[in-house]
Amino acid sequence: MKRALNFNAGPAALPQAVLEKAEKNWLNFNNSGMAIMELSHRSKEYEAVHNQAITSLRKLLSISDDFEVIFLQGGASLQFSMIPMNLLSEESTANYVLTGSWSDKALKEANKIGKTAVAASTKEGGYHSIPNLSDIKVTEDAAYLHITSNNTIYGTQWHQFPDVAIPVVADMSSDILSRPLNMDQFDLIYAGAQKNLGPSGVTVVIIRKELIKDNGKLPTMLNYHTYSSNNSLYNTPPTLAIYLLSLVLEWVEETGGLEAIQKENTEKAHALYAEIDESNGFYIGHAEKNSRSQMNVTFNLASEQLSAKFLAEAKHAGFVGLNGHRSVGGCRASIYNAVPKEHVHELASFMKNFRLNN
Amino acid sequence: MKRALNFNAGPAALPQAVLEKAEKNWLNFNNSGMAIMELSHRSKEYEAVHNQAITSLRKLLSISDDFEVIFLQGGASLQFSMIPMNLLSEESTANYVLTGSWSDKALKEANKIGKTAVAASTKEGGYHSIPNLSDIKVTEDAAYLHITSNNTIYGTQWHQFPDVAIPVVADMSSDILSRPLNMDQFDLIYAGAQKNLGPSGVTVVIIRKELIKDNGKLPTMLNYHTYSSNNSLYNTPPTLAIYLLSLVLEWVEETGGLEAIQKENTEKAHALYAEIDESNGFYIGHAEKNSRSQMNVTFNLASEQLSAKFLAEAKHAGFVGLNGHRSVGGCRASIYNAVPKEHVHELASFMKNFRLNN
Repeated sequence: MKRALNFNAGPAALPQAVLEKAEKNWLNFNNSGMAIMELSHRSKEYEAVHNQAITSLRKLLSISDDFEVIFLQGGASLQFSMIPMNLLSEESTANYVLTGSWSDKALKEANKIGKTAVAASTKEGGYHSIPNLSDIKVTEDAAYLHITSNNTIYGTQWHQFPDVAIPVVADMSSDILSRPLNMDQFDLIYAGAQKNLGPSGVTVVIIRKELIKDNGKLPTMLNYHTYSSNNSLYNTPPTLAIYLLSLVLEWVEETGGLEAIQKENTEKAHALYAEIDESNGFYIGHAEKNSRSQMNVTFNLASEQLSAKFLAEAKHAGFVGLNGHRSVGGCRASIYNAVPKEHVHELASFMKNFRLNN
Repeated sequence: MKRALNFNAGPAALPQAVLEKAEKNWLNFNNSGMAIMELSHRSKEYEAVHNQAITSLRKLLSISDDFEVIFLQGGASLQFSMIPMNLLSEESTANYVLTGSWSDKALKEANKIGKTAVAASTKEGGYHSIPNLSDIKVTEDAAYLHITSNNTIYGTQWHQFPDVAIPVVADMSSDILSRPLNMDQFDLIYAGAQKNLGPSGVTVVIIRKELIKDNGKLPTMLNYHTYSSNNSLYNTPPTLAIYLLSLVLEWVEETGGLEAIQKENTEKAHALYAEIDESNGFYIGHAEKNSRSQMNVTFNLASEQLSAKFLAEAKHAGFVGLNGHRSVGGCRASIYNAVPKEHVHELASFMKNFRLNN
């Protein structure tokens, strides 16, 4: 079977080895005579999968016991509300750095919950870059500083992180596990799974234990304490999605962990950015060079017509998902962990040939 | 491969035909070179699956255009909060009928949102039955009446529904699609998928359009309007779970629809209740006869020791999931749509033999 040249922004390509392993166990998980999603979430067999996913994630990111790793549903979008619900009080202000549409949405949801402030923004510049760390100003009563570590729509990514005296909350939906992290720099990391972690339908939250308060007034399902005190098994979790997540984590370990993954990601991103830089303005990268994302390479061609021609010919050549986000247009190649480097090099060649022919 | 004798309460058995179809398409959905969960949720291929699931559900339940069919995450437990958030005002009271642990939890969550009242309860009797319809008393300012159509833990089920002048909200997580419904009797039906609809990780809400208000103060992801105005595609839905749901719905259609499913369910439930009734008190059914569930058959044996012996021997004989809920103990056979009648008859035979030998 020929695998598609899948550059989707999310849901996105998954490692072929993961899909094949899941297929092998599909009808008969662990010799149980059942599929994984037919097992009780209270069974030993499922709990082993669930706990293995937590253990793997802890190992890969060197997450200490100061943190809880929990699984939720509703995507990053539900976290936009849960974070202020759980972390913001009437006496404090939620601080947001605006680097794209997703951080903007996160701010809008926080506005419904309590006081907010914009700590820095590159909105006026068209979200071409990440702010300088020194330009980030937090309020004195800041409950936390929220950042979006990678911006899928604009193709920008944080390459260093704020060093502030307040909790740092990061939406890492689109670049978690793409590189090693220093967990000391973070207090809450969250990510919808459908880019680097697995299928859509499960959200991972890594939260410093001291931030978890048992606020009984919150709806039970919107209270982090519910998840941390029940090992994310208060109600039925999305067992199939967590199983696939566990296989993706296993694949990352087998690939050599985050250093190896980062090396590969750097090579993949370089292949495309090199073609953009060598094209003398034929391909116009959206992101400023020092803010470039290794996950989403966004670019335009000289005219809308030429962009449309590029996208049409790329589609014809078998490339999937190269259209920019519907809110900005243009082109975007999403090259998450599971996109094989061979596919990226094929795209770089295609771009070069298209340039030479147009 | 021998399929397990799976009587799990949820996540539960899925139709073998559904698992096999998913397996066949696993690595290469629709000749796309991608798995279903690698497709963009904005692609035509995925949207066709998404819309087919909605169309099938509308057809099976004869849902008119007066209703929206939406897909959410978070299970029925999140609906316990979303329902009062969306339907309750400061001037109205949420009315609940208590028939078991789940309706009790639904009430507790509503208490955090606004005013509530208990319209009827069988808690004092130990949740052995469903109240008489004539015993249900709603407040004058009732926003809605909430019922739990089937009670998995206690093994009771509503066999007729309240005829009241206020919206009727029903948690049908454990018996949706087990029998035909008259949708005129309902205004909001919700169900976590993991019993009769598919894997865990997707929740179905069928809501009368006139109940949907665009309350901008609500968190976006907790507002039904977000889902109804975006065809449940505001953010990334759990695409794999919805795909499996669509296959389960197709299977129900192919099985002959809800009349055929009901006939089979009646036969399956009868096989077990007949053994209980013929056992002269060896097996003691928890539910009163006129409140018996066709989905969850709950019973005890004369002593805890005998129950434990029964469960141990059943497990040894290959039966899975017969333990009662951890909150009540005893025995429970969950016989949702996908549990083959042959498996139920095997269990009935096992129960008879165990009785004759003990």
